[in-house]
Amino acid sequence: MEKIKPRTLSGFMELLPKDQIKFNKMYDAIRKTYESFGFLPLDTPILEASEVLLAKAGGETEKQIYTIERGDSKLVMRFDLTVPLAKYVSMHYGELSFPFRRYQIGKVYRGERAQKGRFREFYQADIDVIGDSELSIVNDAEIPYIIYKVFKNIGLKDFVIKINNRKLLNGYFEYLDIKDLSADVMRIIDKLHKIGIDNVISELKELGIKEDIINKIIMFISISDTPYEIITKLKELKINNETFNKGLEELETVINYSFNFGLDNDCLDIDLTISRGLDYYTGTVYETFLKDHKEIGSICSGGRYDNLAEYYTEKQLPGVGISIGLTRLFDQLNELGLLNEVELNLVDTLIIPMSDNYDYIIKTFNKITNANKRAQIFYEKRSIKSIINYALSLNITKVIFIGDDEIKNNTVTLKDLNAHEQVTDTIENIINKL
Amino acid sequence: MEKIKPRTLSGFMELLPKDQIKFNKMYDAIRKTYESFGFLPLDTPILEASEVLLAKAGGETEKQIYTIERGDSKLVMRFDLTVPLAKYVSMHYGELSFPFRRYQIGKVYRGERAQKGRFREFYQADIDVIGDSELSIVNDAEIPYIIYKVFKNIGLKDFVIKINNRKLLNGYFEYLDIKDLSADVMRIIDKLHKIGIDNVISELKELGIKEDIINKIIMFISISDTPYEIITKLKELKINNETFNKGLEELETVINYSFNFGLDNDCLDIDLTISRGLDYYTGTVYETFLKDHKEIGSICSGGRYDNLAEYYTEKQLPGVGISIGLTRLFDQLNELGLLNEVELNLVDTLIIPMSDNYDYIIKTFNKITNANKRAQIFYEKRSIKSIINYALSLNITKVIFIGDDEIKNNTVTLKDLNAHEQVTDTIENIINKL
Repeated sequence: MEKIKPRTLSGFMELLPKDQIKFNKMYDAIRKTYESFGFLPLDTPILEASEVLLAKAGGETEKQIYTIERGDSKLVMRFDLTVPLAKYVSMHYGELSFPFRRYQIGKVYRGERAQKGRFREFYQADIDVIGDSELSIVNDAEIPYIIYKVFKNIGLKDFVIKINNRKLLNGYFEYLDIKDLSADVMRIIDKLHKIGIDNVISELKELGIKEDIINKIIMFISISDTPYEIITKLKELKINNETFNKGLEELETVINYSFNFGLDNDCLDIDLTISRGLDYYTGTVYETFLKDHKEIGSICSGGRYDNLAEYYTEKQLPGVGISIGLTRLFDQLNELGLLNEVELNLVDTLIIPMSDNYDYIIKTFNKITNANKRAQIFYEKRSIKSIINYALSLNITKVIFIGDDEIKNNTVTLKDLNAHEQVTDTIENIINKL
Repeated sequence: MEKIKPRTLSGFMELLPKDQIKFNKMYDAIRKTYESFGFLPLDTPILEASEVLLAKAGGETEKQIYTIERGDSKLVMRFDLTVPLAKYVSMHYGELSFPFRRYQIGKVYRGERAQKGRFREFYQADIDVIGDSELSIVNDAEIPYIIYKVFKNIGLKDFVIKINNRKLLNGYFEYLDIKDLSADVMRIIDKLHKIGIDNVISELKELGIKEDIINKIIMFISISDTPYEIITKLKELKINNETFNKGLEELETVINYSFNFGLDNDCLDIDLTISRGLDYYTGTVYETFLKDHKEIGSICSGGRYDNLAEYYTEKQLPGVGISIGLTRLFDQLNELGLLNEVELNLVDTLIIPMSDNYDYIIKTFNKITNANKRAQIFYEKRSIKSIINYALSLNITKVIFIGDDEIKNNTVTLKDLNAHEQVTDTIENIINKL
């Protein structure tokens, strides 16, 4: 028969078992952390009706979408977990309790040009708190603590959560009388760490902004210090603008309460250049960086928005949320060796039959597993050396031999592959050594 | 703005949070059971190249496949987890240790006509043991024990695993000199429990099989008794056919060892009508039924196959595996109320601020969660009644009030919503009551 060359599509992560175990431990840690804060699980479909999912999309996003034509209907694969949440909350509004705290960890699809570190199928791990008409600012202060817990729980040490408030920027630009250019200016200053100050200035010039205004923008976004000092400096500017002062008040609240939750001092910064490209953020915005690996970019981002689901419902549904791009993050942390050291085996003991008396062998297996020890029987007939290699390849370090002698004497023989020690004893005594 | 009606595609399960928690507990129990037997995790992509995934498909399967055309390339959504496994094992042959024991729990897609209990997107939960050239029959005997453990762990009581061996059927049909009709006869007798004996007979007649042969087939598949008795009766037939006797030997081994593993007597039956439609099964076959709900059909099926990946590789890769259709099973068990009673909350305690002194409130939250109790703060300003309703809707039965009095006296007030009791005490004393 002619063979077809098996291959996996480029941009699709497919791991070997050991890396998959590592990935799953990271996944589990994130899920467990989200659940510990009372976020309820959701699992919306990967396929949605095109007219529903693309109600809001357009431009670049729409081009990347995987579309399925089936008879009269057009289906699309979800490209994020936010639009499905908006759909879900508007559909099930009457059946949910608000604030609705939900997490979803699932695969999303974007047909981007494949390149290293970019995936076309990737997991996102999101939380959002959705309010009914209103949502307290204290929710925004809990988010950095959740990010902090998540990353501590997967083993990261040197990371920093950078926060800002878009009202602060919008208010300041209003005050500078360049309100109409607000979105463009944000887009430019958001790139500061990437393109450098000179390029930011020249791009601002290209917008037609006068030099003295540009200077004020640069002065403003250059304010850096401890979070509390930045708040003080911002107050000292005495900007007479309502939006600005609302943003400053929110930022101060978020900073104060975030530290109350117990964040390490060096894990939270205010960064006035951060604005997040997405239009729907209206207040607090978050980005998270690895201090020693800024080149990775933000590993967890999000923010506050005024209205989750305006395309579906008249209800006002403000929210705050974050998203972790799990697949890319795993890929990079794994390469950098920054993940928690985890057990890469599922069982500790391999039982190797040297006899066909499976009654005794299975009885031994049952005794071991009933004692809550993790074991597996090797059923194939192979050389001892080959079986030991099998055990080692699965990180199994203890093997139990059962041959005719052991069966006759009602014993088993335990070999520790690390210590190269071997002992024959009753199964009960051996279990204590596992 | 004109609103778009939010909707979920028919045939796609989307649960409310409480049911999602239940689903996740079932999912977790299955995953944990599979892992306890040393099955390694896999997570292959949902999208594959069409020519790879459809190497083997055809007919009905192919019609149901969701296809994405993108430029020159044709992508398809996986319709099961077996073909991706075949692809994976042939691609990564050199990097895997055999026997390769893997589990995968993931969504698969079939564009079937939507009807009650049928899903277009559904989870499958599969295990397979793949051998390199050969695979011991004792693997087949471990499978019923794994099925048994899985269903015990999700709370099912009255189920029965029915097994058969296709060599037995093939050998018997060879012996009856109707080898060429083997596949058709199996397809017909497999429907016995659905269509009844009279219809089986008339369908066999339509195949042109003579009456005395039909009688022998009916006599054969009607053999029923305890597994050991059936083995004895089959031996007493003294069928002089190699395939038959190989099948009988395999079946006897599987029965013997399965009971050794510790299956309850009434959880395992031999059923000679079971053949599984799929062509690639070549030996042991499994189906699992709920004794009181046979109408649901098999809730876990599988079997032994000679060659997993002949479309991709020259290597001979025999295997044995099972698959649980998780989404449909959950849907039905949940409706019948047959799942484990599980906790339907993620947190036990809701902290209700009656003051804006969040320093004290967050300190209380930290003390509770640091003591490994599960709590959540309610940040919104609402009536007490409305907040209590929120707690009850999330199955949270304890609330903690913190007002100015509590803060002044360094206490908190705990109210048990079930017992309707309320007590004010230090946070340390209250924690002991949570």
